[in-house]
Amino acid sequence: MRIHLIGLGKMGANLALNLRDKKHEVLGFDLNDTARDVLRKEGIETFDELEKFLVRKNNDRLIVWLLIPNNLVDQVIDQVIPHLKERDIIVDAGNSNYKKSLERYEKLKEIDIDFVDVGTSGGTEGARYGACLMVGGTKDTYDYLEPIFKDVSQENGYGYMGSPGSGHFIKMVHNGIEYGMMQAIGEGFELIEKSPFEVDYDVLSKVWNHGSIIESALVGYIGNAFKKEAKLDSILGRIDDSGEGKWMVQEALDFGVAIPVIAQSLFTRYKSRDEHKFSEKVVAAMRNEFGGHSVYKKK
Amino acid sequence: MRIHLIGLGKMGANLALNLRDKKHEVLGFDLNDTARDVLRKEGIETFDELEKFLVRKNNDRLIVWLLIPNNLVDQVIDQVIPHLKERDIIVDAGNSNYKKSLERYEKLKEIDIDFVDVGTSGGTEGARYGACLMVGGTKDTYDYLEPIFKDVSQENGYGYMGSPGSGHFIKMVHNGIEYGMMQAIGEGFELIEKSPFEVDYDVLSKVWNHGSIIESALVGYIGNAFKKEAKLDSILGRIDDSGEGKWMVQEALDFGVAIPVIAQSLFTRYKSRDEHKFSEKVVAAMRNEFGGHSVYKKK
Repeated sequence: MRIHLIGLGKMGANLALNLRDKKHEVLGFDLNDTARDVLRKEGIETFDELEKFLVRKNNDRLIVWLLIPNNLVDQVIDQVIPHLKERDIIVDAGNSNYKKSLERYEKLKEIDIDFVDVGTSGGTEGARYGACLMVGGTKDTYDYLEPIFKDVSQENGYGYMGSPGSGHFIKMVHNGIEYGMMQAIGEGFELIEKSPFEVDYDVLSKVWNHGSIIESALVGYIGNAFKKEAKLDSILGRIDDSGEGKWMVQEALDFGVAIPVIAQSLFTRYKSRDEHKFSEKVVAAMRNEFGGHSVYKKK
Repeated sequence: MRIHLIGLGKMGANLALNLRDKKHEVLGFDLNDTARDVLRKEGIETFDELEKFLVRKNNDRLIVWLLIPNNLVDQVIDQVIPHLKERDIIVDAGNSNYKKSLERYEKLKEIDIDFVDVGTSGGTEGARYGACLMVGGTKDTYDYLEPIFKDVSQENGYGYMGSPGSGHFIKMVHNGIEYGMMQAIGEGFELIEKSPFEVDYDVLSKVWNHGSIIESALVGYIGNAFKKEAKLDSILGRIDDSGEGKWMVQEALDFGVAIPVIAQSLFTRYKSRDEHKFSEKVVAAMRNEFGGHSVYKKK
């Protein structure tokens, strides 16, 4: 099929090559010159002007596939709309908030443009050689696009999640689970590190990933890291987040659902960013006031 | 090699068949008639009297492999000792507390008997077709037994963790991580279940386990369960534990290490066993006293 891919960053560039390998016709759009150059050298036609990019070749429905930061989605959709006609399809395959995706679906439906929300997992390697796609939207449009989903995914690594918004909702939950799993693994290694045992973490990760109950992609990733650096000495324990965990806790609050482990994992990331939290200063100061317990002073 | 296996339950029976398939000479011991019958039909020699079971065939070191509940380990070791001589080896491949294993190693060392602690993961399927083994003990004895470890494990699914006790210590950490990962997955599905989306959990588990970042043995297991029963209607949300999570939190307290997610996962299991915790009655009663908020009364 013919796919107009907007966003040729790490994920987009890899997906473009993946699509090309599977004999789809990919056209790439990015304002960044370097991003376009990389793909042009791979033989993929690239553009920086929408009017030249969104050209109709025949009567097929135009497929515009977005892999861009979520704060740019509305703006890009607004710029794309004038080039589309009824029954064309916009696929948002980035990490958008599912409520926004539902709004976008409704808004585009009014002008008879289809909108599909796709949660994309598997990282850059997945985008290149087989991603994992969680798709929300109307079943009809899902069926129409299925040949693409099938080709760029791992075998069985894509599926129809349900009504519009569900793809990004499920991706949000996926990321929340990911936070919790990562935190549990982190805590496990922390306890070993503080124990009297001298364990080779590279060996341990390999053993755990061959037949144990915690065998997982994540244990594989940390094994790769330990292979590079036995004790991760060069890395700070400061963890960013890209928003999905926060959305998930917000949804849990709205639905009245307890997700203590995922919330704790998110809060642990927040905490990791300050050397000393104000809350901890407050507790240290109180202990000093009522019990005379000594406080540590700044040097 | 010749292995004297004590404990022919789910794990032991499967390990016996695994050892036999790999051309080791397995002798099985269990006081339970049915357990012995099952293996005897498979052509494995079984015993219910230690004096007949622990017979020396040649001058090789006797290898006694325990796969029994951890509360029986000391008792069984005491009964086994009179049949052993110096340099014989006792392997505890069950879920013992690592501190006990260290004590047992020291005690047996005094009479020149070797003790090896093995954390066994991978469940009954693993025991049968390829387990995951985390081994603690002296390196010499590990090397001596390695042909067995290699044969009954998945490829690369075994390794030397370090000094005596480390095998069971690492298995304890493995189980703690397992609790945290399971709880995170549980919370994720809970949020989806309370959301407006109707998601097929069988499909979702399959998609997640083909290329996503949370791809894991555990997502595979829950997928199997959803395949049998779409909403797990027949199952109560009451979760037992077999002690390793508790030990891990105890160790975290002793070492002064924060493992909030693993502790929360354990506490969630405790909480799951009562319909209403006393702590929650206390909070409900306080809200009623200070704010007149209504309480729910027993019917």
